Amino acid sequence: MTATDPAAGHPQAPADLVVTGCTALVHDPEGNVGFAADRAIVVRGGVIAALTSSAGAARLPAAERLDARGQLALPGLVNCHTHSPMVALRGIAEDLPVEEWFNDWIWPIESNLTERDVELGARLACAEMIRGGVTCFADHYFAMESVAAAVTDSGLRAHLGAAYFSSQGPEGRARSLEFALDHRGAADGRITTCLAPHAPYTVTDADLAATAQLALEHGLSVHLHAAENRDQTEASVARTGRTPIETLQRAGLLDEGVELLIAHATGLAERDLDVLGAARGRVAVASAPRGYLKFAWDTTPVRALAGLGIPVGLATDGAASNNTLDVWESMTLTALVQKQSTGDPAWLTARQALHHATLQSARAVGLGDTVGSLAPGHRADLILVDLSGPHTRPVHDLAATLVHSARSADVTTTIVDGRVLMRDRELRTLDVDRIAAQLEERLPELTRRAPGRRIQDYRH
Amino acid sequence: MTATDPAAGHPQAPADLVVTGCTALVHDPEGNVGFAADRAIVVRGGVIAALTSSAGAARLPAAERLDARGQLALPGLVNCHTHSPMVALRGIAEDLPVEEWFNDWIWPIESNLTERDVELGARLACAEMIRGGVTCFADHYFAMESVAAAVTDSGLRAHLGAAYFSSQGPEGRARSLEFALDHRGAADGRITTCLAPHAPYTVTDADLAATAQLALEHGLSVHLHAAENRDQTEASVARTGRTPIETLQRAGLLDEGVELLIAHATGLAERDLDVLGAARGRVAVASAPRGYLKFAWDTTPVRALAGLGIPVGLATDGAASNNTLDVWESMTLTALVQKQSTGDPAWLTARQALHHATLQSARAVGLGDTVGSLAPGHRADLILVDLSGPHTRPVHDLAATLVHSARSADVTTTIVDGRVLMRDRELRTLDVDRIAAQLEERLPELTRRAPGRRIQDYRH
Repeated sequence: MTATDPAAGHPQAPADLVVTGCTALVHDPEGNVGFAADRAIVVRGGVIAALTSSAGAARLPAAERLDARGQLALPGLVNCHTHSPMVALRGIAEDLPVEEWFNDWIWPIESNLTERDVELGARLACAEMIRGGVTCFADHYFAMESVAAAVTDSGLRAHLGAAYFSSQGPEGRARSLEFALDHRGAADGRITTCLAPHAPYTVTDADLAATAQLALEHGLSVHLHAAENRDQTEASVARTGRTPIETLQRAGLLDEGVELLIAHATGLAERDLDVLGAARGRVAVASAPRGYLKFAWDTTPVRALAGLGIPVGLATDGAASNNTLDVWESMTLTALVQKQSTGDPAWLTARQALHHATLQSARAVGLGDTVGSLAPGHRADLILVDLSGPHTRPVHDLAATLVHSARSADVTTTIVDGRVLMRDRELRTLDVDRIAAQLEERLPELTRRAPGRRIQDYRH
Repeated sequence: MTATDPAAGHPQAPADLVVTGCTALVHDPEGNVGFAADRAIVVRGGVIAALTSSAGAARLPAAERLDARGQLALPGLVNCHTHSPMVALRGIAEDLPVEEWFNDWIWPIESNLTERDVELGARLACAEMIRGGVTCFADHYFAMESVAAAVTDSGLRAHLGAAYFSSQGPEGRARSLEFALDHRGAADGRITTCLAPHAPYTVTDADLAATAQLALEHGLSVHLHAAENRDQTEASVARTGRTPIETLQRAGLLDEGVELLIAHATGLAERDLDVLGAARGRVAVASAPRGYLKFAWDTTPVRALAGLGIPVGLATDGAASNNTLDVWESMTLTALVQKQSTGDPAWLTARQALHHATLQSARAVGLGDTVGSLAPGHRADLILVDLSGPHTRPVHDLAATLVHSARSADVTTTIVDGRVLMRDRELRTLDVDRIAAQLEERLPELTRRAPGRRIQDYRH
């Protein structure tokens, strides 16, 4: 923090924001999670200018000060894969296998979606995520311009991709590219973009290969679904001789220079691990364990991916399947389900879960140098968590308290780029009652299902 | 509600409490869960005197009125198996297999427990449960007189059993009986009691048989651990030729007239289902799915038990393994984990989960005619839930919203016997900061572990 660092600003000028008195989640040089007591976080120009002692920051002039005594400061959570506007459909299609869920409910209803529906859904989703301590989300949906508008107004950070199917013809892919080029760097740099083919079972090999080329040509990352479940992998092998991951490889999506975010990957075959291990590009996986339980799927093989050095970010998927956008719950469930699925209670410790929630999630969405850590020079995306409730006392181990006792409802304050989006659980940028009322007016028309009318068929 | 019904009181006299404007979770005559809009709940003498329309109750005189517009009223949650004072140890022994967890941490530490530690732990646990919408809990621990004192002061309802091992000699069983006889009906009837042998692997067959006899003789129910995991069942068969459930049968604990609450039962063998199906006594199971994931155990076979008509109540176990006493989370996890463990996304619907959380949990603790339903004549144990947050909107299906989107933190109000224990998330009977501070003072001494010193060995 010197006067020559433009992010830090002039050290004599007042800081934009100083948060004092908190215990901070910190990472050591190897990335291991630890905690530092009685810290102050100094923000200038949207960046963490310093993480110092509270005493050291006591007399620092600041435009805004937050007293965070008794609270934990963590890097804001990152939702690495969602379809934010689908909050409009939360709870509409329950207790169903995925085939019926897609073909009888979601894809018929999505044929009714208007841009306004998408925008209202995205606004409601942003409100939910801010309340849950999420500061950045990777969205994969239609009418992405409407999501971008919601992101801009909400103050959140987002990594956005306009979804496409090959059934839309070449226009789908072109629109995905156009969106990515038009919107990268939008919302004062809070929006990053990517190409977003839906999945190997809805996008042709030729379109996937073209996407890999466009990614290289334009320096864009790619976000898609693959190997969502074991049935898809088996169906792919039966149909083409290749697993979904091998299809991605063949399309060039694992090549050097391509950054690929794969959602789910619960249906990885043993041989896929070799393919992913040999990838020259940067590969990451987003895991949304709640929905896998609900659809009775296997879960993401996090341990095998860790062995390959592939980051696994936390995600919620859309609320039409997951019912919530609660990334904190995804963190907790990742810890619990990984123990159960590996048969090893010592695997995926609370500290490992926090590593997934911070550094690995930031890396998964291509923002490893920007967010995910309370390190000076990183963007000031952080949350404060109140541990004074009876359910989080006493504390024997802060990591265990956070992962296994605390809840998203314990987040009191959400800050993005140094701007306070929620304080004492009050939202500052979005009016939930107004948004929800506008959305609720649309529901009768939005949820009407016409026989045979759907945007796509699910046949894995 | 007439003047001849002593519980309802004189109809012209003011009601003690009227809750108006809520949507109420109701059960039809078959026990199926439904919802009734714009209800009023009239309470007299600690009992639900009427569930009527809000308009009908508008001019009813009442000592206290709660405006619950926009909120859901549910029967209070029942925690069917816990060790409440173990909140003192939450997070102290993490990411361990159960053998190390017991032998290296929990049982050494429990050798330091004083009655005051137990009471402070139980008070903190009561605070956590009231905040989480729990109105009744089944506790199984030592120094149960101290738990009874905490229950009395907190205003909660509880079903209490003083735990014993055969390693304590005949005195353990005698104390369990003495507690049960001395305290039944205490706290103005809110305390019911039972006999509480620890488990078939820590209590001899002779002591189990003696317990069954005492239960019949004194009209007491029995609450114990059995078939906690698959290893225990296999070890029991290898050692004795009998499964833990067959051991209970042989001891007479499944005989006519005995009411038995079995905690966990994740290690049921196929042949146990026949044994349980043939039980002449009333058998129920308490399931705490979070801890099973954490220890990498199988889960309770709820579907098989449902086929036998055995109620499965929701539970949290102690917070030293489960980290929370959040029964709402147990409800959610029961729905999710049952789908995954049966491979059937259509099994254990949201309505079924609510059935477990209400009628089945009440039956499991022997209070099926008293609590678990907002039916006139039942005790007025109920909670109000706020669904105005962004994470619970819009609502397409109230059951799904409650089970999969709402959280314990959405409970605003907790009422037991018509007495408001929490209103707008403020506790009325317990001071969390004072209790936690007193408990925290005790921790250095409480958590000291002396080599070889423990209250019991874990060898399944």
